[in-house]
Amino acid sequence: MTGLNRQITLAARPEGMPRLSDFHLAYAPLPSAGPGQVLVRSQYLALDPHLRPRMSADCVDGRPLAPGAVIEGSAVGRVMHSEDPAFSLGDAVEGLLGWQEHAVVGASELRKVDPGPGLTTALGVLGLPGLTAYFGLLEAGELRRGETVVVSGASGAIGMVAGQIARLAGCRVVGLANGNGDLSWLRDELGFDAVVTGETANALNGELAKQCPDGVDLYFDTVGGAATDEVLGRINPRARIVLCGQSSQDNLEQPEPGPRWLGRLTAQEARAQGFRVGSWRERFPAGRAQLAAWLDRGSLRYREEVALGLDAAPQAFIAMLQGLSQGHQLVRLA
Amino acid sequence: MTGLNRQITLAARPEGMPRLSDFHLAYAPLPSAGPGQVLVRSQYLALDPHLRPRMSADCVDGRPLAPGAVIEGSAVGRVMHSEDPAFSLGDAVEGLLGWQEHAVVGASELRKVDPGPGLTTALGVLGLPGLTAYFGLLEAGELRRGETVVVSGASGAIGMVAGQIARLAGCRVVGLANGNGDLSWLRDELGFDAVVTGETANALNGELAKQCPDGVDLYFDTVGGAATDEVLGRINPRARIVLCGQSSQDNLEQPEPGPRWLGRLTAQEARAQGFRVGSWRERFPAGRAQLAAWLDRGSLRYREEVALGLDAAPQAFIAMLQGLSQGHQLVRLA
Repeated sequence: MTGLNRQITLAARPEGMPRLSDFHLAYAPLPSAGPGQVLVRSQYLALDPHLRPRMSADCVDGRPLAPGAVIEGSAVGRVMHSEDPAFSLGDAVEGLLGWQEHAVVGASELRKVDPGPGLTTALGVLGLPGLTAYFGLLEAGELRRGETVVVSGASGAIGMVAGQIARLAGCRVVGLANGNGDLSWLRDELGFDAVVTGETANALNGELAKQCPDGVDLYFDTVGGAATDEVLGRINPRARIVLCGQSSQDNLEQPEPGPRWLGRLTAQEARAQGFRVGSWRERFPAGRAQLAAWLDRGSLRYREEVALGLDAAPQAFIAMLQGLSQGHQLVRLA
Repeated sequence: MTGLNRQITLAARPEGMPRLSDFHLAYAPLPSAGPGQVLVRSQYLALDPHLRPRMSADCVDGRPLAPGAVIEGSAVGRVMHSEDPAFSLGDAVEGLLGWQEHAVVGASELRKVDPGPGLTTALGVLGLPGLTAYFGLLEAGELRRGETVVVSGASGAIGMVAGQIARLAGCRVVGLANGNGDLSWLRDELGFDAVVTGETANALNGELAKQCPDGVDLYFDTVGGAATDEVLGRINPRARIVLCGQSSQDNLEQPEPGPRWLGRLTAQEARAQGFRVGSWRERFPAGRAQLAAWLDRGSLRYREEVALGLDAAPQAFIAMLQGLSQGHQLVRLA
């Protein structure tokens, strides 16, 4: 097999908010699969916020992406050639295939997916975002029926699933989102009880007070920053804060100072729990089965924003980081 | 019974660090016990840091002390008169008797103590400070053998017990303390592995790196502020942070901003757990029994700084808040 493989690589480490010039469209030879490997042609890429910190040298998880490397990220596609008996030509698969049109990966890094509910669900509701919401809320957050749950990044891939799971558990769900665009779909289609988009700390505080009259029992946070400060002011005794990310801080060159509010945790005997979904890998099948059942009976919905073509990935990624996406930001490859 | 009862009352809400003029020496009639009540003559008062936030109107636990009220606080003393069958003349007792020479309290608010190990232990090692250390470390902190434990406020009533319990559990214990005075007793008498007294964030960071070569598994915090920021930079995967108070913030008129480091909790899947000892009341007897056993066999030691006379309480309290006390700050009444 011959041909070229188009890739988006990291041209330069972004300073603050990434710019188009931080990315490079590269042409590589089409790779071939060795023993135990599979060649995949990607159809959709997921442009998720957690990719941003990986682009910085001081990446908090200690695994920064090297300049020149293909941007990492989940993708779904079809098997073009398999050198492993577990996969066959045409299988629908998902994996960390990166921002490129074709990828060769070890068979153990690849997961067969059911194309039935739509290929992209393997990246979203039934992928790491959905599983993050599921295990984050139910395990780290110990979600209980009837609680008031606040979800930041509500219009993002994780937040929109988290809010719906909390609704399914009979909770009052208040979403935090930035005010770009019409967010009424979170209420009207996904069943959030309220969406709060305070433009200032004072406005946010007032809206939160109105929408959480009984305080906040669980705060599911992927964003952090000033919104978190305001939510903390309203937590109930024994509240749980699930920290899945702090995307508001990812594009800052200098750390942003904030009020010290650890005393609030003491006063309320509350807990802030850092969460990484990878630690729940062994239970992914069970989590996916539940999410798929909800999806199948229409209890879980989702919204996607789909950019077209690999070239569009950098701009779509930047727009997502700027809060301009409505729903899960994907790229559909040609 | 006639006579006067000397009391220290709150003259004015402190602005920042309390001043002597915020306190008032008052003379009240000697109170008498009604049915179910007990009159106690106090012998020792405990001047604990958690009293400071209660003096502010915006007290984080919502129960501010009113100006004119007797300062609250634990004390031990002897029963002078009892109108309850559970107590008799001369019994050694402990309770929230306040900064006064005599107090009348309901029998259910009072606890008989064993004068054997020394009356003051009922305020310290066997009192709320000791129990805070015990349940905070073992329950909220899930202390495990062989871990590296950092204890802030190491020379205070809670911290010195926490460090010793961690040592008894076979942990490496690093105490944080301000640099006032000779802190060698924490190592030489109490068995801390190291005491870190960085005067600047950089110095603290360097000392922590040296003393915690394997990172920090458990951070037992009663102080907060800049020291906490530095410790957070060194936490291990699945570290636990037990928040029993944030005394560094109690004397600030304006909230002190700090770096936002919640992303560290996510990266390390770490947990910050707010802790209030009162929620463990039902298990106090078991906790006290263990602490008393350790004390009895010399495995737990303590240091006290004792001021003389009720009049000395305000100055001693201020000195304690300024970090000038070595060990548990008490007042012995005449």
